[in-house]
Parts: sequence; structure tokens; C-alpha cells
Amino acid sequence: MKKKPLILVVNDDGITAPGLRTLITIMNEIGKVVVVAPDSPQSAMGHAITINSTLHCQKMNLTDGPQLEYSCSGTPADCVKLAVNELLDRKPDLCVSGINHGSNSSVNVIYSGTMSAAIEAGIEGIPAIGFSLLDFSWNADFKPLKSFIHEITIKALKNGIPKGVVLNVNFPKLKLKEIKGIKICRQAKANWVEEFDKRTNPMGKEYFWLTGTFINEDKGEDTDEWALSQGYISIVPTQFDLTAHHTIQELNTWDL
Amino acid sequence: MKKKPLILVVNDDGITAPGLRTLITIMNEIGKVVVVAPDSPQSAMGHAITINSTLHCQKMNLTDGPQLEYSCSGTPADCVKLAVNELLDRKPDLCVSGINHGSNSSVNVIYSGTMSAAIEAGIEGIPAIGFSLLDFSWNADFKPLKSFIHEITIKALKNGIPKGVVLNVNFPKLKLKEIKGIKICRQAKANWVEEFDKRTNPMGKEYFWLTGTFINEDKGEDTDEWALSQGYISIVPTQFDLTAHHTIQELNTWDL
Repeated sequence: MKKKPLILVVNDDGITAPGLRTLITIMNEIGKVVVVAPDSPQSAMGHAITINSTLHCQKMNLTDGPQLEYSCSGTPADCVKLAVNELLDRKPDLCVSGINHGSNSSVNVIYSGTMSAAIEAGIEGIPAIGFSLLDFSWNADFKPLKSFIHEITIKALKNGIPKGVVLNVNFPKLKLKEIKGIKICRQAKANWVEEFDKRTNPMGKEYFWLTGTFINEDKGEDTDEWALSQGYISIVPTQFDLTAHHTIQELNTWDL
Repeated sequence: MKKKPLILVVNDDGITAPGLRTLITIMNEIGKVVVVAPDSPQSAMGHAITINSTLHCQKMNLTDGPQLEYSCSGTPADCVKLAVNELLDRKPDLCVSGINHGSNSSVNVIYSGTMSAAIEAGIEGIPAIGFSLLDFSWNADFKPLKSFIHEITIKALKNGIPKGVVLNVNFPKLKLKEIKGIKICRQAKANWVEEFDKRTNPMGKEYFWLTGTFINEDKGEDTDEWALSQGYISIVPTQFDLTAHHTIQELNTWDL
């Protein structure tokens, strides 16, 4: 690619998140950057879109740099739709989402706003990558990720991401010298076992907080969970054709 | 199955929706029914879950019948989590979601609250089916669907749904005698081309409404869109392992 690539940067933790700021810095070294991010945190929004209310968008520049920035009232998927259809003058060459404060490995990909933004871009035919760090804290240390994100992005632009696929990249919470490398993985078959914290409000009415424990009984050494636990960065090629093609034959025997 | 199956009924259009009421009536003929549905419409919520605010739940009985009903403040996925972990005394034998007022065929499965509820149940190891009618109106005619939903549900209970898969069932908007039968399909590769309706509010500030046109360039006769267009009911086996296994080898050549 001779011309500077146009890179759309989105996230789900909101436009002020340090993870997003780190990603902008890295992408400014690679291409022309336009940021379209939610004006408030949108974690666990899955692939929600806004169809029953209005969307607002504000141009701003939160930090120094050549990037254009827009803060939007919608979900991460809304941000991508707005960017592609209203804010950008051409289709971006790449969409990067994150860096998420917290894991999007295994089944978390389903709930993730970060990955829904990447998947939305993928659906619209834009090569896309979601980046996440296994550290929920606002002050997470993103420095060790920089060189890896730069390398993955450059290779994605050079090689092209397979059609119908977006990349789900997760980083272990480790120092640079402790990171062992990168593994291409499959999504571990794990899930959350919920525990609802039941409380009583000042008016005497019951309410709940959703909490849970992550349970991984998939011990495969080809999974993202295994790679991360061993100090590797995991990359899962993630598709949005959800058809379980291998079961079509079995279902045809139901004789419906 | 000798004992009456325990059936969890959920939806995304909210507890008052006629589609849900129809589904309850059908399920009451098959098993012991517990309804856990959102207290307000949650269309296009994708797989959002509520982690930064509280959840409320109210036991009620909106219509006659043996079913137990709960109205909840959360998303469709929240409703399943609450049902399984707080409201039911055992794991349900089946979860059915819908009947959605509107299509969840093709790429709509990604945005669908109806299907996210079914997928959430699937992740928790519960056989699950989402039912949708290609008619957005509140007064849609669900009667032609009844015998088919009854048959599909009975066969799912008898045969078992393949592991790691939930069924996405869509019905054409047709009279009973016009429906040609049922096809097991793959998800058509189609997408929405957005058009944002840009307006100005009374304070002079711009805002947007998300609208769009559904574009299907996938002419495959094995797709849900084809089946529905030809007067068939479509069933797509839908998985929540999003790994694009077939691309792992290609990505390994990137030499990361």
C-alpha cells in the first residue's frame, strides 16, 4: 500500500479511555486516523444498535496528534455505522477496536462491545481487528503491547485479513520481556457461571447485581485461554457467519 | 421424555408482546412454562448484558394460563441469566425465544435480542430455539405459525439439538396454506446498507436516525433468505464458537 491507509479507530470503553488513547498513538504512526468512539462506557453491549432513539455526534480533539476525533452517543456498532456512512469520505482500509480494558477471549467475544465494533466493520467489508488486555483497571499498563499491535497491524494491511473474518487479539497482563510471542488460536469453550448478588433497596424492594465466575473446562492447547495462561498473545480469527454447517445434515434427518 | 419438560420462554419485544403470548400458549400444551421477559422492548440489543446497573424482577400473570411469569428490567440475555440462576429451581429442558415481531434471518441474527437470548441459553448448555416472523407489526398474524412451532419444539425435545448449536427459525409472512414447508439452511451473506436520516433539533443541534436497506447478494438456494423468499420456513443451526477454523492455517503463514 503506497498511499497512507485510512484507519478507523473505535472502542467500547468510551472516548476518554487510556486504551483508546494508546491505540490512537500507535495508529498515527501507520496511517491517517479517524476516531469514532462512544461518549460513555459501553462495555458488555454486545452487538446492540440504536434503532429506537436518536444518535448524536461531536467533533473534538481530546489529545494532541493528527487524528480526527468524534464522540458519539451510540453503541460501538453504531459508531462504526456512523463512521462509514456519515463521517468518513471513503471506506477505511482498516478498522481497529480497543484497546479494551479487560479480556475478550473465549466466550467473552459474544458479550464484547469492542469485538462487536470490529465485527460490524467486518460485515461492512472492512478488514478489522479488536485488541484487548487482560486488565480491567483504568490505569492498566498498555506500553508492553505497542510493538506487537504495530506488527500485527502492519501484517494485516500487507497480507489482508481472510474474507468474512475479523481478528480477536488478546494480551496477557505481563511485562514486555515476559511475553513469549503470538499464537493463532481457537476460541476456548468456556462460560460464565453467574451469581446474582440479591439486595434490598431503601424502599424494601429486591434487586440484583450480575456477578459471575469464569469457568474454562476446555484444556485444549490450541485455545486462546491456554495461550494467554502460558504468556502468549492470542489471535482468534472470528467469523460472523454463525451457521453450524456441520450440523445441517443431522437436522435434515429430523424430517420436518 | 416422560416427565413434563420445563420450558423457559423469553423474548426481546417485551413481556406484553403478542408474539410472546402466542409462544406461551403453544408451550403450555407441551410443558411446564416459566416466562422471563424484558419489561420493555429490547429489539436490536444484540448480546448486551447489564453489568453497570441493577436488575429488577416482578412476578406477574398478564394472561390466563398455567405459566409462571416474571417481568425483568434487563436485556434478553440478562433474562436468561436471571431465570437460570435465580428464578428456576432446576435447569430448563428447553429455552424458546420470541416469537419475534420481525426477521432474524441472515445477518440480522447478529443484532437480534431474540437470538441472543437463545444463544445465552445455548452457552449455558440449554437446548434453545429462537422463533421470528417476517412481520414487524404489533398486530402480526401468528396463527399460521402455531402447528409448525409445536412440531419443531416436539422434535427438538425428542431428538436433541446438536451440541454447541441453537436453532434460528424464521417464518415467511404468509397464510397457513401458502407455507410450503421447512428448510434447513445456512445464514445468507447479506448486510444492511445504512442511511442516516440527519435532522436538526429545536436547539439547532444535528442528530441522526439510523435507517437502512437490506442488501442480499447471496443467491445461494441453500440460504435462509432464499427459503423465505420461496415460501418456506427457514431453520439455521447457529453456533457460538465464532472461530473461523478454516483460516488458522493461513494466519500461521503471517509468521507473527
